[in-house]
Amino acid sequence: MDPFMQAAIDQAKKSRQEGGIPIGSILVKEGTIVGQGHNQRVQQNNPILHAEIACLQNAGRVGSYLGATLYSTLMPCYLCAGAIVQFKIKRVIVGESETFPGASEFMKSHGVEVIDLNLLECKKMMREFIETFPQLWNEDIGEL
Amino acid sequence: MDPFMQAAIDQAKKSRQEGGIPIGSILVKEGTIVGQGHNQRVQQNNPILHAEIACLQNAGRVGSYLGATLYSTLMPCYLCAGAIVQFKIKRVIVGESETFPGASEFMKSHGVEVIDLNLLECKKMMREFIETFPQLWNEDIGEL
Repeated sequence: MDPFMQAAIDQAKKSRQEGGIPIGSILVKEGTIVGQGHNQRVQQNNPILHAEIACLQNAGRVGSYLGATLYSTLMPCYLCAGAIVQFKIKRVIVGESETFPGASEFMKSHGVEVIDLNLLECKKMMREFIETFPQLWNEDIGEL
Repeated sequence: MDPFMQAAIDQAKKSRQEGGIPIGSILVKEGTIVGQGHNQRVQQNNPILHAEIACLQNAGRVGSYLGATLYSTLMPCYLCAGAIVQFKIKRVIVGESETFPGASEFMKSHGVEVIDLNLLECKKMMREFIETFPQLWNEDIGEL
């Protein structure tokens, strides 16, 4: 397993253990983790802290995102993909896109390289969560 | 002046007085302000708290955004437009789009009604800021 994706999965598991949504994200610059985060909708009652947004917040003002790679256990939604496009993060590596297709085409159309690792572990984690808390999941992706 | 846009302008002015980026945003549901915010890049050293994102964060978990209108003193960038599209906010009213064209077409292509009030006051506020702090502005929109 790619150690950065493993770190993203660890973030997702931490969130699930806290009673939250199991999605984790890692920002890597020059081979080093500069930010990490997980979804905070439940933990902080915060609707905008999707995993990727929490990760970018935790990374802080890093200046240019040139050469940075964002890892996420799940394909980013439009909110997170919008951040990726606006901040010119040119490489995104995701755990899976089967349980949620996200905004893959939108990112690609803006020149973002999107790599889907199609990991069984990530799919299992999301399937278990969505089956257990369908309403919470729909709230998180704006499907209410 | 529309009182909701006035409230967004007041948020933008507050941010400028704090030494921050002068963009403000208001979320209205059923004729009532349910969230307000302004850019927090400088004040909280936070790269993801654009005015619209800060506003959505402050509104909290409002459930469905059906019928909600988001006001912003400036046309939303892809980050903020991504949030609008993902959370199905179907109406956006902006102060101007002359100093920054933003992601207007992206929102419209996803069925968002985008109304540009083209307000001189908003344009003056942004022009003064961009001329005084060009580097900070470029950082905020990912143009480093």
